[in-house]
Amino acid sequence: MQKAFVIGIGQIKIGEHWDKSPKEMAGEAALLALSDANFPRIDALFIGNMMAGTANKQLNLNSLIADWIGFRGNESIVLESACSSGAAAFRAGILALASGQIETALIVGVEKMTDSPSSEITNTLSTAADADLEVDMGVSFVALNALLMRRYMHEYGWKNADFAGFSINAHANAVNNPYARFRKPISEKNFIESGMICDPINLMDASSIGDGSAALVITNNQKYLNIKQKISVVGSSASTDTISLQTRGDPIWLTGAEKSSKDAYKQAGISSKEVNVFEYHDAFSIMAALSLEASGFVERGKGPQLAIDGEIKPNGRIPVATKGGLKARGHPVGATGVYQLVEVVQQLRGEAGDTQVSPNIYGMAQNIGGSGSNIITHILKRE
Amino acid sequence: MQKAFVIGIGQIKIGEHWDKSPKEMAGEAALLALSDANFPRIDALFIGNMMAGTANKQLNLNSLIADWIGFRGNESIVLESACSSGAAAFRAGILALASGQIETALIVGVEKMTDSPSSEITNTLSTAADADLEVDMGVSFVALNALLMRRYMHEYGWKNADFAGFSINAHANAVNNPYARFRKPISEKNFIESGMICDPINLMDASSIGDGSAALVITNNQKYLNIKQKISVVGSSASTDTISLQTRGDPIWLTGAEKSSKDAYKQAGISSKEVNVFEYHDAFSIMAALSLEASGFVERGKGPQLAIDGEIKPNGRIPVATKGGLKARGHPVGATGVYQLVEVVQQLRGEAGDTQVSPNIYGMAQNIGGSGSNIITHILKRE
Repeated sequence: MQKAFVIGIGQIKIGEHWDKSPKEMAGEAALLALSDANFPRIDALFIGNMMAGTANKQLNLNSLIADWIGFRGNESIVLESACSSGAAAFRAGILALASGQIETALIVGVEKMTDSPSSEITNTLSTAADADLEVDMGVSFVALNALLMRRYMHEYGWKNADFAGFSINAHANAVNNPYARFRKPISEKNFIESGMICDPINLMDASSIGDGSAALVITNNQKYLNIKQKISVVGSSASTDTISLQTRGDPIWLTGAEKSSKDAYKQAGISSKEVNVFEYHDAFSIMAALSLEASGFVERGKGPQLAIDGEIKPNGRIPVATKGGLKARGHPVGATGVYQLVEVVQQLRGEAGDTQVSPNIYGMAQNIGGSGSNIITHILKRE
Repeated sequence: MQKAFVIGIGQIKIGEHWDKSPKEMAGEAALLALSDANFPRIDALFIGNMMAGTANKQLNLNSLIADWIGFRGNESIVLESACSSGAAAFRAGILALASGQIETALIVGVEKMTDSPSSEITNTLSTAADADLEVDMGVSFVALNALLMRRYMHEYGWKNADFAGFSINAHANAVNNPYARFRKPISEKNFIESGMICDPINLMDASSIGDGSAALVITNNQKYLNIKQKISVVGSSASTDTISLQTRGDPIWLTGAEKSSKDAYKQAGISSKEVNVFEYHDAFSIMAALSLEASGFVERGKGPQLAIDGEIKPNGRIPVATKGGLKARGHPVGATGVYQLVEVVQQLRGEAGDTQVSPNIYGMAQNIGGSGSNIITHILKRE
């Protein structure tokens, strides 16, 4: 497969953008990425979005955004796989480049969630779960993750407070990220005293929704490459698992994350030990623990120990959520996968500011849709 | 680009499947296509769907369907571009095959529309248009097409009755298609006397919604090819246009259809004259006329003449809607593009029964999203 390079990144601050429509948010992020890439000729536009149809009464975002940003005539498509839609759009672009039909592509993740009634957002988030086997039984998306966390705590003996390190790290890192929704550090006391949402998931275990858009430009045309910052895509893999937790043989092991990360390591020719930064999908702290385990960074059942030991901090063994993660940067669901990749590029370029990791050769982003039912892993490398 | 072959097709009858969920419909079509292809090893699943999030309260169909049909662990993704979602899924599969990362893929189009309140379906169909510039002004999707048809009639002097031939041909052809929703022929009298929906679009100008699913298996692995029926994909191209009609320079010319068909002809090394069957996107009869013109089958403003002259019948110069088209087969929006491709394969294989065309070397399918804002054209060839 021909190598793809990331030559441009752009993102807008995650927040409550009541004055902006999805196309306007997407347009801003796209323009920033195109400008960063020095305005190459774009052949196709790949959009990651989950809920514009329900939250914004707007599908066909591909035509809408292509039109808005002035790409009339260009190919454009929307990829949806719940909260992993962003990485799905990136992967579709990577495959399109490799096909030889397309040379340079713009990837945009966009989601506008905060000016819909929160009940509607909760309902739409639950469409990522099995409508027949889970949602119709009255379980919400956070409740599914609470079931996972409870089971995990039971199996391995962890307590609520043991998960605090994930959120403390995320919030500490977000302080220096101007695009993050929450830029205030939190303490262990804040974590322990935070309100319970769905036992055992408290407010500080859960990521926040938000409005946001992020974008990347990828190419395999050598003439667009900036020699100082050659960031290539060396691994790309997607896997599924059962959508409902009840049909999963081992619910506290993310088989899809194991499969897609192993595949990505193999493509990149590395092991997990060589990954310098890991933007994981900490939608809930239980997902942070499970991702670290299934991706080979720590043995089974030991995820929280990495956080307790400080190994996930920017100077630790495996830095995660270096710009705040889903927890503190915010989780505009269909855009999140693109934010993760933008942040990995920032790290590999050495543009991550106070949370810069070192060395910064390999960066990995893992985007999860459903309760671990769709997992897409990418590995990027500074050449 | 490495050549892809279609080695399996499957479809279920379009109708009101109140006893089946989207996954069950998709599973049936998938099983038929897999069986037809003699059960090859599948690497990835590409799903075309528009409105499961709103109509069925179920997103993440990729995980759901992969799980349901027993592809646990396999890559799977949903493609959305309104009514062109089906062809978008096929094209994503074609590009993935060409990338070399995937060898054999299953493409499934699925849509379940009839057990939602019709107002909800009307609202969701309008999400294919521009929410800000069109829908918020009170215009529905059929109204946008009515504006196009009125303008077209004004410019070229056609009357309502002049469009009858499109619908008469579609219904006549559907009589012999066991998968079509409407299998009764209609007369010119039926057409003229049918009720007005949105002037000048009457009931017989408009396609019907429906529940349906169709599937295809594509591969570039020679070992899976049946020598008797080598159907290859020789052209694949997607284009966009402005999403809102008001910003389109020439609303009665489908620039996207012209661009994507020209591109597909070029890839296939043929002209429109060599196309033996054209499964077009006759969501409304005006779209039938505009597609024929923009794709080079007749000069501008003369679309209805082709129908009047009988040139669109199975034995005519350019047979269209040979299994009923969107008009009579039915238009389960996100699945339609896959039905079109399945029907082209039936024609190229010589399995089209009473509406078989001859010769049957090249077949073309064109799927349209929005009011011509996203157009995807494929050309298939019997080797």
